[in-house]
Amino acid sequence: MTTPRVSFFYAPHTRAGGTLALFEELGVDYDLHLLSLKAGTQRAPAYLAINPMGKVPAIVHDGALVAEQPAVFIYLADLYPEKGLAPAIGDPLRGPYLRWLVFYGSCFEPAIVDRAMKREPAPPSTSPYGSWEQVYDTLVAQLATGPWLFGERFTAADVLWGTALNWTTTFQLVPEHPVIRGYIDRVLARPAMQRALAKDAGYAAQQG
Amino acid sequence: MTTPRVSFFYAPHTRAGGTLALFEELGVDYDLHLLSLKAGTQRAPAYLAINPMGKVPAIVHDGALVAEQPAVFIYLADLYPEKGLAPAIGDPLRGPYLRWLVFYGSCFEPAIVDRAMKREPAPPSTSPYGSWEQVYDTLVAQLATGPWLFGERFTAADVLWGTALNWTTTFQLVPEHPVIRGYIDRVLARPAMQRALAKDAGYAAQQG
Ligand SMILES: N[C@@H](CCC(=O)N[C@@H](CS)C(=O)NCC(=O)O)C(=O)O
Ligand SMILES: N[C@@H](CCC(=O)N[C@@H](CS)C(=O)NCC(=O)O)C(=O)O
Repeated sequence: MTTPRVSFFYAPHTRAGGTLALFEELGVDYDLHLLSLKAGTQRAPAYLAINPMGKVPAIVHDGALVAEQPAVFIYLADLYPEKGLAPAIGDPLRGPYLRWLVFYGSCFEPAIVDRAMKREPAPPSTSPYGSWEQVYDTLVAQLATGPWLFGERFTAADVLWGTALNWTTTFQLVPEHPVIRGYIDRVLARPAMQRALAKDAGYAAQQG
Repeated sequence: MTTPRVSFFYAPHTRAGGTLALFEELGVDYDLHLLSLKAGTQRAPAYLAINPMGKVPAIVHDGALVAEQPAVFIYLADLYPEKGLAPAIGDPLRGPYLRWLVFYGSCFEPAIVDRAMKREPAPPSTSPYGSWEQVYDTLVAQLATGPWLFGERFTAADVLWGTALNWTTTFQLVPEHPVIRGYIDRVLARPAMQRALAKDAGYAAQQG
């Protein structure tokens, strides 16, 4: 590999856990930059100079910042095509794969924020996600085929959705459903996911 | 081109206008499926069978649905690499390109919805977009280099941001700023963008 290593800006017990898991699934090396939300280092000038949004996850590769979970996932899975976690351009699954990664950030997260804040969503026609019921039903219907989001093909999108559904069901932001429970269990049973959860817990303990 | 044609699900005076403009910039043919938000055809069973979210824009290509603006843009620009609207995988601009397309749906739209509804955003650390000021400042700083989002290189991301900033400034959801104004004017001055605006107006008139 002549590709320069990826720098990964991460903090434990945050959305960056999904990217930590993606690295485990890819099985590639990277340079970890450990931030602490408790200490607020993600808002310190040194990090804002890298990511002006002060958010994790973020990666820097070949001099360029990539932030926003779906973008980080698309980028990393394409960077290591030999790992098979991204349907390539031209593969019939490429479109659905992009749709579901983007749907996570454009629809699912805004819906979850409205639920967490117990507030009225925007009117369905103008809201980017319509209604919570639409998001939930569309998700359950997609997962119902299984075992993964796209049937037999495990992709980076499963890493994002598996980790996200794990914490959102834990915090009861997503109502339990046998289809969702089964999916989370299958994702979490993967050795790479187990390693990622252990690392995340280890870094959290380290920060005290 | 052996690629099958793309079916484009569109309604005038909606977010689908950005994709209409992207098709003009690409200069490729497609099959238009005209929906009417006034008549509510986007919520009719026929369309829900295609896109269960009942949203436009959406495309169907090679039997697969692609919805969510950033996903549609990434997909279409990659489908026609010879048009040069997407930095290819391996191009140093690929990461920033993905970041800014996803940032639109994951950060800018949720921030705009909160502003439109005049409501308190989630606490900055948990909100996917932090604060409106961060979103705005990050955007203005990126556009300040110009003439396009990535300097001299015009990409599909400029089509999305140009059309989005046009309607959001018109509705005063985004405060005026010389950097933003200049950018919108440059994007809208492009012949393809002019053709798209004329078509959008034409379809709207047709629906009465
Ligand atoms: N839109 C971003 C959201 C990332 C995000 O909000 N991360 C949180 C941690 S879960 C964060 O970095 N918060 C720190 C802060 O805003 O100060 C993405 O999709 O990656
Ligand atoms: N998250 C979607 C949002 C699309 C969307 O909300 N479109 C509106 C028109 S601007 C729509 O189709 N509304 C019709 C409805 O929900 O009934 C995207 O990024 O494409």
